[in-house]
Amino acid sequence: MAEPDSKRIKTEDAPYELIYWHGLPGRGEFIRLLFVEAGVPFKDTSDKGHGASIGQVLELVSPDLGPSVQGKNPPVCAVPALRHGDVLLSQTPNILQYLAPRLGLAPKEGVAVYHLNQIVLTLIDGFVTELHDTHHPISVAAYYEDQKPEAKKRAKFFIEERLPKFLGYAQRVLDAETSGDGPWLYGDSLTYADLVLFQSIDGTQFAFPKTIQKLKESGKYDGVFKLYDTIKERPAIKEYLASDKRQKYGDGIWRHYPELEEEEEKKE
Amino acid sequence: MAEPDSKRIKTEDAPYELIYWHGLPGRGEFIRLLFVEAGVPFKDTSDKGHGASIGQVLELVSPDLGPSVQGKNPPVCAVPALRHGDVLLSQTPNILQYLAPRLGLAPKEGVAVYHLNQIVLTLIDGFVTELHDTHHPISVAAYYEDQKPEAKKRAKFFIEERLPKFLGYAQRVLDAETSGDGPWLYGDSLTYADLVLFQSIDGTQFAFPKTIQKLKESGKYDGVFKLYDTIKERPAIKEYLASDKRQKYGDGIWRHYPELEEEEEKKE
Repeated sequence: MAEPDSKRIKTEDAPYELIYWHGLPGRGEFIRLLFVEAGVPFKDTSDKGHGASIGQVLELVSPDLGPSVQGKNPPVCAVPALRHGDVLLSQTPNILQYLAPRLGLAPKEGVAVYHLNQIVLTLIDGFVTELHDTHHPISVAAYYEDQKPEAKKRAKFFIEERLPKFLGYAQRVLDAETSGDGPWLYGDSLTYADLVLFQSIDGTQFAFPKTIQKLKESGKYDGVFKLYDTIKERPAIKEYLASDKRQKYGDGIWRHYPELEEEEEKKE
Repeated sequence: MAEPDSKRIKTEDAPYELIYWHGLPGRGEFIRLLFVEAGVPFKDTSDKGHGASIGQVLELVSPDLGPSVQGKNPPVCAVPALRHGDVLLSQTPNILQYLAPRLGLAPKEGVAVYHLNQIVLTLIDGFVTELHDTHHPISVAAYYEDQKPEAKKRAKFFIEERLPKFLGYAQRVLDAETSGDGPWLYGDSLTYADLVLFQSIDGTQFAFPKTIQKLKESGKYDGVFKLYDTIKERPAIKEYLASDKRQKYGDGIWRHYPELEEEEEKKE
């Protein structure tokens, strides 16, 4: 673990490894999509199956075990984590910010670094953190079944107010001067923010299909859904989504509980 | 608005301006503390009083008004925002990441940039985002009084499981090899992460004083509370905290509702 600092320069040539749970796209998916789009190979602990990937995640995040595998890096509170040579990083937007310029999906410096980070943090706030709390508004340690009435209330607020707010935000980003030519959120070419938007919409569509359909039909967010479609048709992404490498949605962040988007009074 | 790109180089000499609500420390406080510690003057919209600061915030975040004031920057979804010459940024961890190296509170490059961002994102997840939801577990658009039973449940979970988890995380950061000499979270000198920790603990202590007292007495997080005390005694911070520049806690993120930390069955 106590390697000389001079070794760190070799990190840039080292292979990338994603450490994440097996069996769900989750926050790890944002990171996978960068590698897929860039055509850069990476190791994925979730490929090892349920048992081995759990072992590797727990080894990292357990207070007792973490120090033995973290090397010269601060402890990891939660996955996804990225290992790149002797560098170990956690926090999804942080990993993305580290990776994107290395994979050609963001500028290496300048104000664009912060503009892109701002867009990504806002998308993740809305489509990941807030969406997650629609099925776990009280406690992540308790089952959904034990917080259903609260989940129903929070989902109603999310569907009616938060989701339109964040979709409206994404559309405004597309309408701004900083979104140049083409369908992209920022500048004139694809960046990692576009991949984050794709996964955000894809997951939200799985969780709340009727709601997304309705919002799509409103015509207010055409740029957002057009960008979603554009990313879905990128050759490498398309091939990946059709493969068994793409993990199926299940009981992660994006869950489909039909009762959470049903109207309280059914009118037929 | 359409200024030539060459003007952007002058941004580094421009004054800083924080755009935030008047009358509460809130997320804006993380940014204020960087300026205070660095001894760098900044404009603060909240100094203009309630009405003017609301006007300036709404001008920025309103879908209809935003584009007229955002210049060559992506739209702002929520404050705090920072204006620095023709650069406009939002998202607290993003603003901090931009400011810290400019104010001498973080390295300008290298893996430390991502390590510090990781620590700050984790602290804000726990002590801001999750803490906020203890009094607003259902909807930020509704009053606390309309979500009290849910708030009580979420607060119980926060107090018993999440708060010890995040304090334990901060202590592990201090115990790691990456925390060098001195009381600091990262390296051998004060960084912006230490200021974020200070405000996180200070706010949490206001909201849940009995809980923090109990956790402090457990002796498990001595490094964390020692760092908190160290920051509180920094000359510039100490002077600021005693001044009327330091906004009082109220109905922002960190609120004190005694009922949220009372035991359900009182045993005397």
